[in-house]
Amino acid sequence: MSTANYPARVRLIDVGPRDGLQNEKQPVPAAVKIELVHRLQAAGLWEIEVTSYVSPKWVPQMADNHAVMAGITRQPGVRYSVLTPNLKGFEAALADRPDEIVVFGAASEAFSQKNINCSIAESIERFAPVVEAARKAGIAVRGAMSCTVGCPYEGDIAPERVGMLARLMKGIGVQRVDVADTIGVGTPLKVQRAIEATLAHYDIDHISGHFHDTYGQALANTLAALQMGVWNFQSSVAGLGGCPYAKGATGNVATEDVVYLLHGLGIDTGIDLEALADTGAWISERLGRPTGSRVGRALLAKRASAAERC
Amino acid sequence: MSTANYPARVRLIDVGPRDGLQNEKQPVPAAVKIELVHRLQAAGLWEIEVTSYVSPKWVPQMADNHAVMAGITRQPGVRYSVLTPNLKGFEAALADRPDEIVVFGAASEAFSQKNINCSIAESIERFAPVVEAARKAGIAVRGAMSCTVGCPYEGDIAPERVGMLARLMKGIGVQRVDVADTIGVGTPLKVQRAIEATLAHYDIDHISGHFHDTYGQALANTLAALQMGVWNFQSSVAGLGGCPYAKGATGNVATEDVVYLLHGLGIDTGIDLEALADTGAWISERLGRPTGSRVGRALLAKRASAAERC
Repeated sequence: MSTANYPARVRLIDVGPRDGLQNEKQPVPAAVKIELVHRLQAAGLWEIEVTSYVSPKWVPQMADNHAVMAGITRQPGVRYSVLTPNLKGFEAALADRPDEIVVFGAASEAFSQKNINCSIAESIERFAPVVEAARKAGIAVRGAMSCTVGCPYEGDIAPERVGMLARLMKGIGVQRVDVADTIGVGTPLKVQRAIEATLAHYDIDHISGHFHDTYGQALANTLAALQMGVWNFQSSVAGLGGCPYAKGATGNVATEDVVYLLHGLGIDTGIDLEALADTGAWISERLGRPTGSRVGRALLAKRASAAERC
Repeated sequence: MSTANYPARVRLIDVGPRDGLQNEKQPVPAAVKIELVHRLQAAGLWEIEVTSYVSPKWVPQMADNHAVMAGITRQPGVRYSVLTPNLKGFEAALADRPDEIVVFGAASEAFSQKNINCSIAESIERFAPVVEAARKAGIAVRGAMSCTVGCPYEGDIAPERVGMLARLMKGIGVQRVDVADTIGVGTPLKVQRAIEATLAHYDIDHISGHFHDTYGQALANTLAALQMGVWNFQSSVAGLGGCPYAKGATGNVATEDVVYLLHGLGIDTGIDLEALADTGAWISERLGRPTGSRVGRALLAKRASAAERC
């Protein structure tokens, strides 16, 4: 028998409204985003990544950030986070009083250049005043560390590179970090090595796992991270964040699938899986495509079959 | 860091030609099945479940069993197995000289009744002469133990029920058994408990894991089984065996997805993943639907994107 110990509870951060919807070709109305946030918090999510404050020239899908943040009826105990790539973005976000901001770095030099148009070192320099301003304003700061396992341009990423990025994040005052397998190429041992490298700078309570399901490995990677004691994970309802049928599919792991795994392991999430699956079905219908969640599909099929028998 | 030990190599049994194609509404020509077997062995599969000898009244899709077995150019070292539900089926199979026969039992009484129309005890009585005849003929015998985690009629299945079935299988001379999560509802600890119950009667070298991906848990379950030392697994190229978009979807885990996981863990499979993905793409095209393998989809997308850049 495996001697793995699992955490008693896990906190999931649903990144659907931001990471999930930022690549949609058809703009999603602010009212739909607001309802998505409301449905997620009603289903029991404790943390929701709501929007970003990036130039609408680059990411027009998030141009409605103020409207979305203003439209949310906040629920006590829920943490609302937003992405702020630079000081200008942070200043725009500040008026909306997010609970946490997210800065976005990469463990791959090539990815950093292509994605945020600067070197890793330059990105950290750019984040430093953002982090400082946020902490002065009493807003928490999370650092997304992308490409910690593999990069579309550089291939495999050495754990040392992840450790270096974590050290830089720590150096400027970032309070917790995501170990992200941005392109979903990771497998359990590689993911564990990236987390291990991060553990040199952040304790286990300040590390979250962020896995994409491009190669179907996200739940196996989640299991491997749980076995190291990680108890914070990011995921996206309905697997939003990249059409699974499109070239270079890069959907986030579906929150429903992670919750099913965790509940099966006896781990408390505070989430109502049926309500979450309803939310996944609802947003998928709004986007006009099938859910990217296998659990979502299976639960819908089960209900349809039960309804038929009645 | 996790202290899990993984086996150095894993043997995969592709059940695509049999378990995968037996529910196809449109009959698949024998020539396609034969080519599928040839492609699988060329990709490095060591074991292939080819067909079954069930009454064509019940499973018309396998009525071409003799033609398929006769049409295969066998490769030395590859094991060709077939399903034989009763003595009549076994006698029909005998002429085709399979390397191994498979008898199919259930850990759920209700599932046994609905699926093979008899109680578990009766099924074992029916298998006993089949096993005896096979072993006299020098043919190996594997026992598929279905519904070892959950049953569509009974819900959760207690590990004791799995242990009981394993004991009965052992008692009639079945040499190795599959611990199957037939409806894909299992999660890692439940799967480990079913394997643990089986270990009371079979050693680890004679237990294989058989997981369906209905709830997306198959690779997490595979990881958990690997951590117990299991090194034989069943899977199906392209995830054949149930349309993922249909009600009650019950596809086998895709062989490509398992191979990607195993190679990422540094485990030797003897399989060429690119050739396997080609095979998955080929059979999916023949069946007129997208592959059920995420790895298959991601590799195809990667190639298309590389071709575009040329």
